[in-house]
Amino acid sequence: MSNLRLLHVGLGPLGLRIQQDLLDKGLGVTVAAVDLAPDVAGRPLSQLVPGASNVRVLSSLDEVSNWEEIDAAIVTTSSDLAKCETTLAHILSRGVAVVSSCEELVWPWLRHKALAERLDGIARNAGSQLLGTGVNPGYLMDALPVFATAVCKSVRSVRISRIQDATSRRVPFQKKIGAGLSPAQFQAAIGEGWLRHVGLGESLHFVANSLGWPVESWKETIEPVLATKPLQCALGPIPVGYAAGVRQTAEGVSGGVVKLRFEFQAAIAQANPHDRVQLESEPPLDLVFQGGVHGDVATSAIVLNAIAPLLSARPGLHTMATIPTVACFDPRTAAK
Amino acid sequence: MSNLRLLHVGLGPLGLRIQQDLLDKGLGVTVAAVDLAPDVAGRPLSQLVPGASNVRVLSSLDEVSNWEEIDAAIVTTSSDLAKCETTLAHILSRGVAVVSSCEELVWPWLRHKALAERLDGIARNAGSQLLGTGVNPGYLMDALPVFATAVCKSVRSVRISRIQDATSRRVPFQKKIGAGLSPAQFQAAIGEGWLRHVGLGESLHFVANSLGWPVESWKETIEPVLATKPLQCALGPIPVGYAAGVRQTAEGVSGGVVKLRFEFQAAIAQANPHDRVQLESEPPLDLVFQGGVHGDVATSAIVLNAIAPLLSARPGLHTMATIPTVACFDPRTAAK
Repeated sequence: MSNLRLLHVGLGPLGLRIQQDLLDKGLGVTVAAVDLAPDVAGRPLSQLVPGASNVRVLSSLDEVSNWEEIDAAIVTTSSDLAKCETTLAHILSRGVAVVSSCEELVWPWLRHKALAERLDGIARNAGSQLLGTGVNPGYLMDALPVFATAVCKSVRSVRISRIQDATSRRVPFQKKIGAGLSPAQFQAAIGEGWLRHVGLGESLHFVANSLGWPVESWKETIEPVLATKPLQCALGPIPVGYAAGVRQTAEGVSGGVVKLRFEFQAAIAQANPHDRVQLESEPPLDLVFQGGVHGDVATSAIVLNAIAPLLSARPGLHTMATIPTVACFDPRTAAK
Repeated sequence: MSNLRLLHVGLGPLGLRIQQDLLDKGLGVTVAAVDLAPDVAGRPLSQLVPGASNVRVLSSLDEVSNWEEIDAAIVTTSSDLAKCETTLAHILSRGVAVVSSCEELVWPWLRHKALAERLDGIARNAGSQLLGTGVNPGYLMDALPVFATAVCKSVRSVRISRIQDATSRRVPFQKKIGAGLSPAQFQAAIGEGWLRHVGLGESLHFVANSLGWPVESWKETIEPVLATKPLQCALGPIPVGYAAGVRQTAEGVSGGVVKLRFEFQAAIAQANPHDRVQLESEPPLDLVFQGGVHGDVATSAIVLNAIAPLLSARPGLHTMATIPTVACFDPRTAAK
């Protein structure tokens, strides 16, 4: 798998990190790249990522002419699955497998049931595979907790926390968590719909469905984490009383009781970052990533690591629970 | 999957626990059971596990007459794959999938390469699937650590510890770790080959192979954990200076350096039980099951939970890394 020939759509900060990691690992080569942004399209990929191939970044999938060369595609464009539909459908219909970081694609049946069925149909017909993944959603608050239950006779409730220090996260992430906004701006941004971690509901339904639990109702909350001392972030200074980040929760009811509790908190200078899965179960389990998991490194990593297992799965729309185990693959340390 | 019709071979303590859990969960019914022990064969299963079916325990697979009724088989007979071969081959050749707790089957290519290939061939020909699993080997020191690497760009080394308090474990487990033996008896038992946790080497090779790492050399150590105060276990009293349990390690070299370090310690009254995966990786990861994972409950659970994912996999010999995600399935809380 160290000679993967990839199509990559979406060369924003995450996309560029994936390109850099692909290069660092020598995992494969990008033989086609697409990005709509006028400052990106038309340039050789090697200008954006020194050392990458010289393919010119195309402004549309319609310009791709070397489909027969492509082993798999990476799509890192939007959190909103509806905005990704045309792109995903186009690639899948060419018989090319897609791994995407689209948060809503991690459990697309929550908000886009009909769309999910369309994409599944296209993939099955064309013999291609589709997966949404990332560190969260896609792993820490769904796929990993589900795999933790493998050793349980029974599970009564699931509590999952992701508490992270956003200080070293990429700029779009710091923006998405509202860092630096006044409380009024924070509320306005929630109203505009762009300030939030996307995926808590997807993770909740991923876990519930994997355990066979019907979700009778669920709800989300969102509020700012306010700075209690002056802070700095990549977007600028954060005065006391302004938002250092966001706190979101989700709860799900199954069998008449709250069985699913999710807590996501990401803030600049957050103390005690960690990821934790607590199961009221037989046996009881308490699983902690001490120090947490750095999101940007991890999302790029899991997108690349998921390609090989996805290619070995049957055609259709997949989740992290329906493909073989995703593991780190690094050609630099692997057997030749 | 709540109407599974099972064949079960091996009704020792683990087998009986699995039967009890199957019954508690209402996961299915045992339509055929086999055990060689003269005090078990011939009796109705319901005499061994109150509430279970009334099928008479057979003394040989040759007596099974209802193959067409059987959805899957559970084999809990021996840690030694060579001793399981006839049984596994017989069932697989009937087109029936097998989940086994046989420790060596978790990574059979380590000690039984030719046998593994024979079983794989039989399963492929007959359209059946074979999996070796358990909490350890099968999960804590192999499948889970491998899945932890999913979010890593690169991994330089893996350190895995399982430190457990054996006080509440089943009698054969306490015996296998040498609880109550004098140091001389402990050494003699090692020589006789029955005193050891089986599977550390299998776990090491499972992890290395999943990461693509060639294992150039590896070694194991084994020594007693000596009681420093008088202890009691299910086998009797343990005087000071006698073995409270066992400590085993395994190390593997890849790329010329020790990259894999495994540590297994199980003793009566062991303090601070836990399971831990430490990765020198990008990002660095430190994953801990706080308080550890109770082995008997967990092994029975994972054997039962693995049946459905195994049945959805292609025919052949599998590992925990090649089947879809194993998760807890409990018909009592699942959607009807």
